[in-house]
Amino acid sequence: MEKINKLAIVGGTHGNEFTGIYLVKKFEKFPDLISRTNFETNTLLANPKAFELVRRYVDTDLNRCFKAEYLEKDTNLNYEQSRARFINQMLGPKGNPKFDFILDLHTTTANMGLTIVLVNNHPFNLKMVAYLSSFEPDLKVYSWINPGVENSFVNSICECSLGIEVGPIAPGTLQADLFQKTEKLVQRSLDFIEQFNEGKLHHINRDIVVYKHLKVVDYPKNKHGEITAMIHPELQGRDYQKLNPGAPIFLTFDGETICYDEESSVWPVFINEVAYYEKGIAFCLTKQEIINHG
Amino acid sequence: MEKINKLAIVGGTHGNEFTGIYLVKKFEKFPDLISRTNFETNTLLANPKAFELVRRYVDTDLNRCFKAEYLEKDTNLNYEQSRARFINQMLGPKGNPKFDFILDLHTTTANMGLTIVLVNNHPFNLKMVAYLSSFEPDLKVYSWINPGVENSFVNSICECSLGIEVGPIAPGTLQADLFQKTEKLVQRSLDFIEQFNEGKLHHINRDIVVYKHLKVVDYPKNKHGEITAMIHPELQGRDYQKLNPGAPIFLTFDGETICYDEESSVWPVFINEVAYYEKGIAFCLTKQEIINHG
Repeated sequence: MEKINKLAIVGGTHGNEFTGIYLVKKFEKFPDLISRTNFETNTLLANPKAFELVRRYVDTDLNRCFKAEYLEKDTNLNYEQSRARFINQMLGPKGNPKFDFILDLHTTTANMGLTIVLVNNHPFNLKMVAYLSSFEPDLKVYSWINPGVENSFVNSICECSLGIEVGPIAPGTLQADLFQKTEKLVQRSLDFIEQFNEGKLHHINRDIVVYKHLKVVDYPKNKHGEITAMIHPELQGRDYQKLNPGAPIFLTFDGETICYDEESSVWPVFINEVAYYEKGIAFCLTKQEIINHG
Repeated sequence: MEKINKLAIVGGTHGNEFTGIYLVKKFEKFPDLISRTNFETNTLLANPKAFELVRRYVDTDLNRCFKAEYLEKDTNLNYEQSRARFINQMLGPKGNPKFDFILDLHTTTANMGLTIVLVNNHPFNLKMVAYLSSFEPDLKVYSWINPGVENSFVNSICECSLGIEVGPIAPGTLQADLFQKTEKLVQRSLDFIEQFNEGKLHHINRDIVVYKHLKVVDYPKNKHGEITAMIHPELQGRDYQKLNPGAPIFLTFDGETICYDEESSVWPVFINEVAYYEKGIAFCLTKQEIINHG
């Protein structure tokens, strides 16, 4: 990557995640906020129909539609599949995109604060994260990479891309503090790219703490597929905190505590994310690693 | 009211408010938890189709369908209108009900802790609130009565009834601590009724702090009806806290602060409730009053 020429800020990939949607609307009203000297910035409201309905999606999760095999399909497409094709034509095509960078804005009901989600380890992305961390010491980095599995997020169209998650916040609502934090992180991201394009960023040398995805954990369920437990009060809200073997993870409706029974400590994230109930994810387990991006 | 013979615990009047729904499921699995010596307790999952879809409602808000004029209509009913008629036939009819008491379980994204919502000032309800407050000092009481306007909530079927709201929690999720608090309040409510039926409760004499509904406040909007501001960070989460003239209430997307410009102090509730965006309610204003139920 020599230079970023075209960047897309995407909001509303999930139609009920208002922070990104109203930020995109703000940027469309005040384009000066996102204009920089040496590249072009565009905005995109990714799922307008879901936003109108205040739902995550209409037919299927748009942010799981960006696999090459789905994008090549052109018949019997549901709403999100056809949106994915449209977005891929506009920003992509995936693998050889017209845009050089995608910043995709999300929210979560989990207590994840301000989080960058990485979908690959491209040195440009890591450098950008190192830069952003230097301004935002509380910024967390979740590396959601399943080796050997193609990522299906909208920002996987570009090699250079970041997802932003902010929480905890209920879908369909706004919280001014989280709105402002997200806006600031977008501004810093644009500043980084402007300086990168000017060749000014040779010296970022900083340890980054990265939470690497290991696996997902589902809720306990009965034979009818209904959940039988909740996140344990001692785990609720403790995203990015070390979970040791033997620590409580679930409390059943009957009042029984279920503990984490594996042998190594892990760092859970996306604890009690509303949209993951239907995906069979109570939380994701990660491993904390320190990487130095020289 | 001499004696309560039949009581209904209603969950899932809103299909995405999981706390009440999973409590009802728990009580159906362990009926001993809600059985008492001198009255009968039934449970009802009020909006099963909305629960299946994990939405507040399918066609219209079920908890606004219980006005006599709607309940008499019997043609061209949408899903919730026909559910309301069914529930009214089962628990009611409104005004002359088969059940003597309805306890309706709700959640909110507002920071309202454990709240009792009163829809009338029946002495039995006030006595029950005084009893519950003696065990739960943090319990808040919101009296949502619009003089001269018939209430359309499910629990308005019975003169003797309470609504429980608990928050903050995102719809579609569970939080074990709020689940347990709600369960305990249900238990205490049943205990109260059991003792009342035995004639043991002559001596409740306790001041109750009640937040009486004054009016609702909508979000600032542009000419297209779109919101142009968020709850101000200084108001967010401050349900039941005194709001003085001149205090910030909204922050526009452009960064401008809008202040409360009336002459008297008020106590806001339901601040940033997700389901009230579409109803044009950013928060409700109340007046704090101390009443003594002798």
